[in-house]
Amino acid sequence: MVRELSALLGERYVLHDPYDLMLYEYDASIDRSRPDIVVLPSSTEEVAGIVKIAARHRVPVVPRGAGTGLSGGAIPLYGGIVIAFARMNRILEVDYENMRAVVQPGLVNLHLSNALNPRGFYYVPDPSSQRSCTIGGNVGENAGGPHTLLYGVTTNHVLGLEIVTSNGEVVEVGGWTLDRPGYDLTGLITGSEGTLCVVTKIVTRIVHLPEEVKTMLAVFNSMDDASNTVSEIIASGMIPAAIEMMDQMILQAVEADMHAGYPLDAAAVLLLEAEGLREEVKDQTERIVAICQRNHARSVRIAANETERQLLWAGRKNAFGAVGRISPEFYVQDGVVPRTKLPYVLRRVSEICARYGLRVGNVFHAGDGNLHPLILFDSQVPGEVERVRQAGHEILAVCAEVGGSITGEHGVGVEKQEEMALIFSPVDLRVMQQVREAWNPEQLFNPGKLFPRPGRCAEVKQL
Amino acid sequence: MVRELSALLGERYVLHDPYDLMLYEYDASIDRSRPDIVVLPSSTEEVAGIVKIAARHRVPVVPRGAGTGLSGGAIPLYGGIVIAFARMNRILEVDYENMRAVVQPGLVNLHLSNALNPRGFYYVPDPSSQRSCTIGGNVGENAGGPHTLLYGVTTNHVLGLEIVTSNGEVVEVGGWTLDRPGYDLTGLITGSEGTLCVVTKIVTRIVHLPEEVKTMLAVFNSMDDASNTVSEIIASGMIPAAIEMMDQMILQAVEADMHAGYPLDAAAVLLLEAEGLREEVKDQTERIVAICQRNHARSVRIAANETERQLLWAGRKNAFGAVGRISPEFYVQDGVVPRTKLPYVLRRVSEICARYGLRVGNVFHAGDGNLHPLILFDSQVPGEVERVRQAGHEILAVCAEVGGSITGEHGVGVEKQEEMALIFSPVDLRVMQQVREAWNPEQLFNPGKLFPRPGRCAEVKQL
Repeated sequence: MVRELSALLGERYVLHDPYDLMLYEYDASIDRSRPDIVVLPSSTEEVAGIVKIAARHRVPVVPRGAGTGLSGGAIPLYGGIVIAFARMNRILEVDYENMRAVVQPGLVNLHLSNALNPRGFYYVPDPSSQRSCTIGGNVGENAGGPHTLLYGVTTNHVLGLEIVTSNGEVVEVGGWTLDRPGYDLTGLITGSEGTLCVVTKIVTRIVHLPEEVKTMLAVFNSMDDASNTVSEIIASGMIPAAIEMMDQMILQAVEADMHAGYPLDAAAVLLLEAEGLREEVKDQTERIVAICQRNHARSVRIAANETERQLLWAGRKNAFGAVGRISPEFYVQDGVVPRTKLPYVLRRVSEICARYGLRVGNVFHAGDGNLHPLILFDSQVPGEVERVRQAGHEILAVCAEVGGSITGEHGVGVEKQEEMALIFSPVDLRVMQQVREAWNPEQLFNPGKLFPRPGRCAEVKQL
Repeated sequence: MVRELSALLGERYVLHDPYDLMLYEYDASIDRSRPDIVVLPSSTEEVAGIVKIAARHRVPVVPRGAGTGLSGGAIPLYGGIVIAFARMNRILEVDYENMRAVVQPGLVNLHLSNALNPRGFYYVPDPSSQRSCTIGGNVGENAGGPHTLLYGVTTNHVLGLEIVTSNGEVVEVGGWTLDRPGYDLTGLITGSEGTLCVVTKIVTRIVHLPEEVKTMLAVFNSMDDASNTVSEIIASGMIPAAIEMMDQMILQAVEADMHAGYPLDAAAVLLLEAEGLREEVKDQTERIVAICQRNHARSVRIAANETERQLLWAGRKNAFGAVGRISPEFYVQDGVVPRTKLPYVLRRVSEICARYGLRVGNVFHAGDGNLHPLILFDSQVPGEVERVRQAGHEILAVCAEVGGSITGEHGVGVEKQEEMALIFSPVDLRVMQQVREAWNPEQLFNPGKLFPRPGRCAEVKQL
C-alpha cells in the first residue's frame, strides 16, 4: 500500500515511519490511536486516488485538518490511512461582488479572514482555535464560535462542497447560489465528522466587515444576575453579535495568564459585542448597558479602542490555555440548553462536580445556551479520570433532561458516542445510519465514530 | 384498501368518489393527475397507519398541504393515496422565552404569525401564498418569500421534525436546540419534496416583531439603474429585510387590479424594506434613499404609515393574481443568478421571449438574485404551450450558464425534473438518489418527482 501511495503522491508525502506517525495519533481530545500511514495529498485527484487504494485494501480513511478537535474526530481509531490536508491549504477563488470564496480544506480558518480583510470582508465562524484550525475540520465538526449567536455556525456559511465518495468518485454538492434544488447534501455532510465522504473543496459565504464594533465587559456579583441579563437582552428583541460568560475560576486563571483586566473577585463577567451600522451599534450598546445595570452589574466597561477590544477577546479566546496553568489537565464539556434553563443547569454542574470532588470553571456562549464546563483533574491521581468522565456524563444527562443537546460545536467523535442515546432513540439513530450505509457501505470513512458502538451502553464509559 | 383506511380513520375521512377526488388532482402548477384515494388523518399515529397500509399494497403516498405549489409537488403523478393535512392544522406548543413553536404540517403559514403577533412575535418565511399555503408544504418545498434576503428560507427556521418513514415508523429528527449532533436530517428532509418521508410535526424558530419597519418604493426609468441600485446597496454592507423588483408590465397589471399607487410609465420599481431597532432603521433608510438617488431613481417614496405600507406590499404579494387579469394564462419561472449577473440575465429573458413571440413580465426577489419571469400565454392558441415551455427551459439554461440555479423557492416537482441535469452531473444526482433509496427503497413517497425520469432528456419537454 505504501508503494501504491508513493507512486501516486511521491515518497515524501507518504509517512509510515513510527516516529512520523506519532504526531498523528492524537488531537485536542483525550483519546489517541496511531495511524498505519499518513498521506499529504496536493489535489482532489490525489485524494480520489488515495480513497480508491484504501477501498481496494479495505483500510480505514480518516481526514485530518490541524488536529485541534476536542472530541477525537481526527483520531484513527482503527488505524489505516490519515489524510492530512496541510498541503491543500489554498484560497482558490474570491468573488467579492457576490460574496463567495472557494477554498481547500486545509486552509487555516483565520488565514481566510486575513486575506479578505484588506478588501473589507471576513469569514464569520470563529472557533477559539481559529489561529490553527482548518476550514475543512470546521466543516467536518460544524464548528461554532462566539459569533454564532448572530451569524450561525459553519453550516450556515457553507454553500457547496466538492467531495470524494467511498468509491473514489468526485462529486459536487450544493454550489454558488443559496438553496439549490434536490436534497441538501451540503448540510448533510457539514457536521458528519468525516463518516460520509472526504471533502476536497468548500464554497463559502464571505461577509462585509461591520462598520462599527463595540465590545463590553459587564461584571456581576452572582451567576444568576449574569444569566438573567442574558435572558433579558434576548427577550428585548436584540441579537448582539456575541454574549460570552466566564465564571470566577476562569477569570482568575485568565487574569494570571493574560492580564486582560478581568476582575478577580467577581462571580461572573459577560463579554458582549454589538456590531453593524454605526447608529445601530450606538443604540444597541446603550440598551445593553441599561439591561446590565438593571440586573445589578457592578460595572460595565466599553472597550475604548481596538487594542482594548482585542485584549478583552484575547482573555476569552485563550481561556482554555490559561486553565492549563492552574491544573495539570482539564476536560471540557460542550452541552447546549434552552437559555431559560441556564441558572438551573449551572447550579447542577456545580453540584455534580462537588459530589465527585472535582473543581470546575465555566466559560461559554451564554447567548446560545452553549455551556463549556472545564473540569480540572490530574490523571496521576488514581481514579480521577474515571470520576471526570462520570461527571461529564452526568452533566450531559442534565442538558438532555432539560431538552438540550450533548454537543453544541465540538462534535461527537469518540468522546460522546454513547451519549447520543441520551437524545436520540434507537430508531432515530438507525435512520441516520441508513445514510451512512447508503454512501459508505464498508464504513471505511472514519469508522467507529459518531454513533454508539454496538455492545456499549450509555451509562458508563471507561478510559 | 378503502375499507382498511376507513377502519383506521372513519369513513368520512377517506374520499374515493371521483367527484371528491377531482379537487385533489391539481395544484398551482400546470400538471394534473388524479389520486385513487384521499385521506384526512388527524394524528401522527393515523399517518403512520396510512403509510403502513400503503406500503402493504405498494401504492404511492403523496402528502398535500393547501395545493398552492408552483412545481407540481402535490400532484399524485402515479395515483395512489393523497394525504391531505387539513385536519392536522394545530399549533401544539409555543415557548416565547426560548423562541420556539411546535406545529402540525397543515397549519396555514399566516395563522402562525397571527397567533404570535399579540405577544410580539412572528414566523419569518412569508411566501406570497402565505394566506393559504401550509407550513408542511413550506417544509416540503423549502419555501422562501420576500424576507428571505435577511432571514433565510424555511430551512433556516426549522429546527426539528417528527416524520413517518417508509415502513411506518415515527422518528424525531433535530429538536429544540440548534445544530444537534449527528447528521442534519432536518436540513436533508426540508426541501426533499415529500420523496423521503411524511412530516407530521414541525419545531420552528419564532422571532420578535421588529421594533420599526420602513417600506420604500423607488421608481426607475431603466431596469439597469434598478439592478445597479440593488448591487450597490448590498455592496455597501447593508442587508435590508427585502428588495423586490417589478418591471413595467407587472406594474401595469398590478395597478389595474389593486390601485397600489405604482407608477404606470416607469421601467421598474424597487420595493425596499428596512427593519430592526428604531435608530438602525432610520440610518438604513437614509442610506438606501441616497443610493437610489445616486442611481437615478425618479422618486423614492417612504410609506408614511402601516396602511400605506400594507398597500405597497399588497401590490407585490398579489402580482401573480393581477397578471391573470391581462392574460388567460401565465407560466412563472423561478431561476436564481448571482446578483451581479441580473442585468445580463434580464436582457436574455426579454430576448428569448421576444424570439418565441411571447410577452413576459418580471417580479422578483432582486436582493437574492431570484428571478420570477411571468410568461403570458393562451393554451387555446395551437403550439403556444410548447413555445412557453421551450422559452422557460432556455431561461433556466441561461441561469445555469452564469452559475445560478433552476429554482430558488418553488421546487423541482414535476416541472423541472429534466432541468436538474443543467446543474447536476449524473454522478451528483446518483449520490442524491442513494439517500432516497436508503430511506424509501420502494419509492412510494411522491414517486416520479425531483429527479430526471429515465429515458427523458433535458432538451425538450412536451405537455
